[in-house]
Amino acid sequence: MSSLFNGGISVSLFGESHGKGIGVVLDNLPAGEPLDLDEIGVFMARRAPKKDGTSTMRSEKDIPDILSGFYEGKTTGTPLAAVIFNTDQHSQDYGNISHVARPAHADYTGYLRYNGANDPRGGGHFSGRITAPLVFAGAVCAQILKQRGITTGAHIRSIKGISDESFDPMNITAEQLETVKSRSFPVISDDAEQKMRGEILAAREAQDSVGGIVECAAVGFPAGVGSPMLDGLENVISRLVFAIPAVKGIEFGVGFGCADLFGSENNDEFALRNGKVVTLTNNHGGILGGISSGMPIIFRAAFKPTPSISRTQNSVDFKEMTEQQLLIKGRHDPCVVPRAVPCVESALNIALVSALAAEGKL
Amino acid sequence: MSSLFNGGISVSLFGESHGKGIGVVLDNLPAGEPLDLDEIGVFMARRAPKKDGTSTMRSEKDIPDILSGFYEGKTTGTPLAAVIFNTDQHSQDYGNISHVARPAHADYTGYLRYNGANDPRGGGHFSGRITAPLVFAGAVCAQILKQRGITTGAHIRSIKGISDESFDPMNITAEQLETVKSRSFPVISDDAEQKMRGEILAAREAQDSVGGIVECAAVGFPAGVGSPMLDGLENVISRLVFAIPAVKGIEFGVGFGCADLFGSENNDEFALRNGKVVTLTNNHGGILGGISSGMPIIFRAAFKPTPSISRTQNSVDFKEMTEQQLLIKGRHDPCVVPRAVPCVESALNIALVSALAAEGKL
Amino acid sequence: MSSLFNGGISVSLFGESHGKGIGVVLDNLPAGEPLDLDEIGVFMARRAPKKDGTSTMRSEKDIPDILSGFYEGKTTGTPLAAVIFNTDQHSQDYGNISHVARPAHADYTGYLRYNGANDPRGGGHFSGRITAPLVFAGAVCAQILKQRGITTGAHIRSIKGISDESFDPMNITAEQLETVKSRSFPVISDDAEQKMRGEILAAREAQDSVGGIVECAAVGFPAGVGSPMLDGLENVISRLVFAIPAVKGIEFGVGFGCADLFGSENNDEFALRNGKVVTLTNNHGGILGGISSGMPIIFRAAFKPTPSISRTQNSVDFKEMTEQQLLIKGRHDPCVVPRAVPCVESALNIALVSALAAEGKL
Amino acid sequence: MSSLFNGGISVSLFGESHGKGIGVVLDNLPAGEPLDLDEIGVFMARRAPKKDGTSTMRSEKDIPDILSGFYEGKTTGTPLAAVIFNTDQHSQDYGNISHVARPAHADYTGYLRYNGANDPRGGGHFSGRITAPLVFAGAVCAQILKQRGITTGAHIRSIKGISDESFDPMNITAEQLETVKSRSFPVISDDAEQKMRGEILAAREAQDSVGGIVECAAVGFPAGVGSPMLDGLENVISRLVFAIPAVKGIEFGVGFGCADLFGSENNDEFALRNGKVVTLTNNHGGILGGISSGMPIIFRAAFKPTPSISRTQNSVDFKEMTEQQLLIKGRHDPCVVPRAVPCVESALNIALVSALAAEGKL
Repeated sequence: MSSLFNGGISVSLFGESHGKGIGVVLDNLPAGEPLDLDEIGVFMARRAPKKDGTSTMRSEKDIPDILSGFYEGKTTGTPLAAVIFNTDQHSQDYGNISHVARPAHADYTGYLRYNGANDPRGGGHFSGRITAPLVFAGAVCAQILKQRGITTGAHIRSIKGISDESFDPMNITAEQLETVKSRSFPVISDDAEQKMRGEILAAREAQDSVGGIVECAAVGFPAGVGSPMLDGLENVISRLVFAIPAVKGIEFGVGFGCADLFGSENNDEFALRNGKVVTLTNNHGGILGGISSGMPIIFRAAFKPTPSISRTQNSVDFKEMTEQQLLIKGRHDPCVVPRAVPCVESALNIALVSALAAEGKL
Repeated sequence: MSSLFNGGISVSLFGESHGKGIGVVLDNLPAGEPLDLDEIGVFMARRAPKKDGTSTMRSEKDIPDILSGFYEGKTTGTPLAAVIFNTDQHSQDYGNISHVARPAHADYTGYLRYNGANDPRGGGHFSGRITAPLVFAGAVCAQILKQRGITTGAHIRSIKGISDESFDPMNITAEQLETVKSRSFPVISDDAEQKMRGEILAAREAQDSVGGIVECAAVGFPAGVGSPMLDGLENVISRLVFAIPAVKGIEFGVGFGCADLFGSENNDEFALRNGKVVTLTNNHGGILGGISSGMPIIFRAAFKPTPSISRTQNSVDFKEMTEQQLLIKGRHDPCVVPRAVPCVESALNIALVSALAAEGKL
Repeated sequence: MSSLFNGGISVSLFGESHGKGIGVVLDNLPAGEPLDLDEIGVFMARRAPKKDGTSTMRSEKDIPDILSGFYEGKTTGTPLAAVIFNTDQHSQDYGNISHVARPAHADYTGYLRYNGANDPRGGGHFSGRITAPLVFAGAVCAQILKQRGITTGAHIRSIKGISDESFDPMNITAEQLETVKSRSFPVISDDAEQKMRGEILAAREAQDSVGGIVECAAVGFPAGVGSPMLDGLENVISRLVFAIPAVKGIEFGVGFGCADLFGSENNDEFALRNGKVVTLTNNHGGILGGISSGMPIIFRAAFKPTPSISRTQNSVDFKEMTEQQLLIKGRHDPCVVPRAVPCVESALNIALVSALAAEGKL
Repeated sequence: MSSLFNGGISVSLFGESHGKGIGVVLDNLPAGEPLDLDEIGVFMARRAPKKDGTSTMRSEKDIPDILSGFYEGKTTGTPLAAVIFNTDQHSQDYGNISHVARPAHADYTGYLRYNGANDPRGGGHFSGRITAPLVFAGAVCAQILKQRGITTGAHIRSIKGISDESFDPMNITAEQLETVKSRSFPVISDDAEQKMRGEILAAREAQDSVGGIVECAAVGFPAGVGSPMLDGLENVISRLVFAIPAVKGIEFGVGFGCADLFGSENNDEFALRNGKVVTLTNNHGGILGGISSGMPIIFRAAFKPTPSISRTQNSVDFKEMTEQQLLIKGRHDPCVVPRAVPCVESALNIALVSALAAEGKL
């Protein structure tokens, strides 16, 4: 199904950018799980557009309305549904693009896939806006993980060649993850923030956009969770991360870098520390054979530059089958990466809760 | 489920490296599909160990026995089951490793996951050997795709810093894919072959191993297949590619490179060529919004160096909870990448057939 | 998942009787399917409480709000979500039952299943009220079927020993199905209606309740749809029919009666009529080997009497673990069967659309 | 998928009656579960043809070969695959039926479904023979249940109007279930056996066949397992029971009988016995709201008479589209019900293990 994740828990996403509402149904959550709605609000606010020029001015309040599955402050165990009603719709901004495909968007492919019946306004179901209910689901899962001593977090690893420090795959802590999450611009290094902000604003002024890389980690996740072959943590995390529009790559641990290493360099030797099995390096990113090793889980996802730019582009009216020049109006993020950070965390949170649920370990 | 892919078709893998047999059940294949068993044999032979020093000497005939779902040369539409009986088992080679975790293997994590009950011989179900039935499934799907004018193929993109030419994402042809597949060492450039072979043999002599990158493509795949969010081609392909042990990353189109591009560089403008919608560049790797664009599908997967090396390594006996030195005996590939090439193709083939089946387009 | 059907289409139900709202997400519906909302309203009204004394006085307007997946009068192909907001909540009526299990309800089993965290008000997610979104889904599917010349319908086959005529399994027509559906009390025979109404009102006066049997049929469904073993039409229909609270049995064709027949009586011989393969009898209920035969599909479902009766019953406070007498207050249907008729049709409609979708036949 | 059950555990069945082999892959079984292969053999022998005239003379040894997932006497937790090789194939017996549909068989519907490509020999994948791997799976699950104090069993409730005693839904014990299972003709009453045997042999002599009803129960199953709506025990059990060819109906507890009861009769009042919540009657069959109540689980399945009878029948050659007379040769069971008893138990066993696995309760 297009928008259904069906693992240890299920996540059924719905909605279109300019429709009545967007939302999600979470099934098989543990019962009796306390949820702090304010914290969920804080989590979701991290995805909301910023007023600092790095993202669209469109105001998305995005306060989810929980319709079911939540009673007296706790999950009931039956499906938890949440809806965000769309209030700030500017369909007219999109009036002129009609059937002229926006490059790097899904206008053309979506039209083919749904025989022209899909809602084209603002990207419809392909809109980045549908990550709002994904982030709601991720915020719920974050609390379920936290109750079990598991913390996840992400930061911007790079934007257009400017790098933040990396998470230390051996020593990353829950505190560091919480700290970076609490920043309005989620990077470790102040210097990186300044330069990245500059790059984003420059792109904006140039009527252009930039992409980047998000690095995400989990600490406190127990060893021995996951499965070989098709239901490993890498399989499930990657499936969920690619649900975020604009992701074009994912790598775990040392990732693509492992292709340039000798086995003797890449292999993480085992040792005992305080009576616990650890590895002396963490090139494997906390996952061996699809199963958690007890070391921090770490991965990176690559985001392409925002497709919507304010420059004239060559395109095609795929209904009329004529070549056309296209100038996209409306408000657009010059860089989605800062807002993508909680989306990536959410994908991880859902994957981890699902893996625990699948093994009866919640 | 650990070893079950359940999409438009289902693929249920089973087996352990040193058990009686390994195999696969394919459900929901189209009925009446002719299968050329010789071609399947040729496809599978590409995964078999080579006699040229680049892989283990272990002889794996790996001739699959089709037990059901195949009648008078065609698929029946009911489950197709195939078994490969293990004949060349050398359990004694693995006698000494028992509960000392081989670094970068799943010995320790698998032990935790299955409470010590999993078959440890030769990696058990975590063994790269379980890719044999995956490749059988991929070979079956290759023929289903070929009947519809779709060709897939892969090559070694790099090994330890030595690069082959890339596939041309705009102009790659079925002929080129067939050609590179037919080579005993699947690269485009003769020069790359020579250098890579040298690198592999050097690693072998140094009792070490090397990793690399496989690049894979499909041509002829129709536009408009796939789904947004969770069931896009990227989601499904990545889920299947991570089923191959040793994969640590995947990227589509320009992949991680997109993080360093401006939107104006990364966006693939549309145009009409011979009355058909095309893009003028193919940074998107043939997939937009999870849906095929009609351009060649192209992605790369990163493989870590073979974990089994013949050097003494530090480790832990996870049963006795003592630190141990480990020397792995037995025959091992100094580089799995050449043999991984048909595995990556297989993951793609399964994903594409599944996507077509899910939409009733087979 | 508790409330997720995941076949050729997916149906994700949510909501609690006295929560904010109940609803459903339908994924993988065909794109571009026209939906007549008025007709959906008529279909759903058949499930609404009647003012004629046969059902609860509780007013359930149950007008669903479609939030997504519907654009310009047609399905978009992306998830269709609909919500019914609960407005007529009388939680206080249920105040006194707290943890005293209502016999034949799921109060006790639900409490155990969800560790006491499930919403107990009015049965929570176990309430018959959650059939409203099921019926919405069924009404949507009815229209998809109708576009393809397929008609389904159901009637009350019996209530407390009083029988309506049976559908004629050989000659039932779309017109007859439409006619019986349009009746406020869905039976074929006027005489049966009068007697059944009498029986229901008598039960009500006796502070009791009665059960019954619903018979359901489909005509126009093409032959050759369905699958052997686990995904046959019988498997899928029964799975969906048992989603309706109060169902305790299902039988296809001659059903349990086949246990008393000789093979020579039960076997439906084949013949040609107007160049079409038919059977000369229809004991098989239109399904052979899980696959439609082209004959009318026909089955019956047994409904237990409404568990909520206004008599004092013996029970247990499962929290205090004490025996208690229980007197249930509030408004209750003396017989759910009339309102269950569209629920059974809905289960069939979803099953048939799902089977067609799974085989790419929509 | 046609032959895939994917719940808390997965069961992937494959094979055709006259193909090379039939089998099953079980995924997500608990790891470290001891399996007694002799006991599995005894369980499977109950399904094997009898030499007493009540079933076909065809000798089916049906000794399954476990290929994976089983190591040192225990499950490994990774997929358990078992194959039964077909050795006693008499394809020539079926030579004359070719494309003339056997009444009440799936020849015609299967031909349509698979476009004529399915294996027609002996019913192919539609054959009752595919219940052998289902029973293997059921025998494995029986042992997993037994380890947890759960016993299931079934008996012939009736054949052609002749009834055995019923299980006592309040007091049925593990001992009684074991006793009836150990009988070569699984009924409670000796008198019923004699009469039923007589009826079966009479049908055989009359070149006819008879159907019947199997009653199945579980004791010791914990309360609080299962889910409302679509994943209740009734939904899952019925989905699995309908996988057995020839089943045309299923009912739980008092079943269809509930349609003739008042609520005050049908409702099972609660009480405390030895500090445990029980019901004073068990009309609900141990399942309320899809969830186990702790009372014995009890249900019945109706089997149609064996379709293959030795009388001339009217039919159609669906390839030539001509009416034909058909005389079925070969060896056939005059009554499948005795051999169906362990099949029904197996469906229940799989459902119960799956439900426990889904909730992390194994």
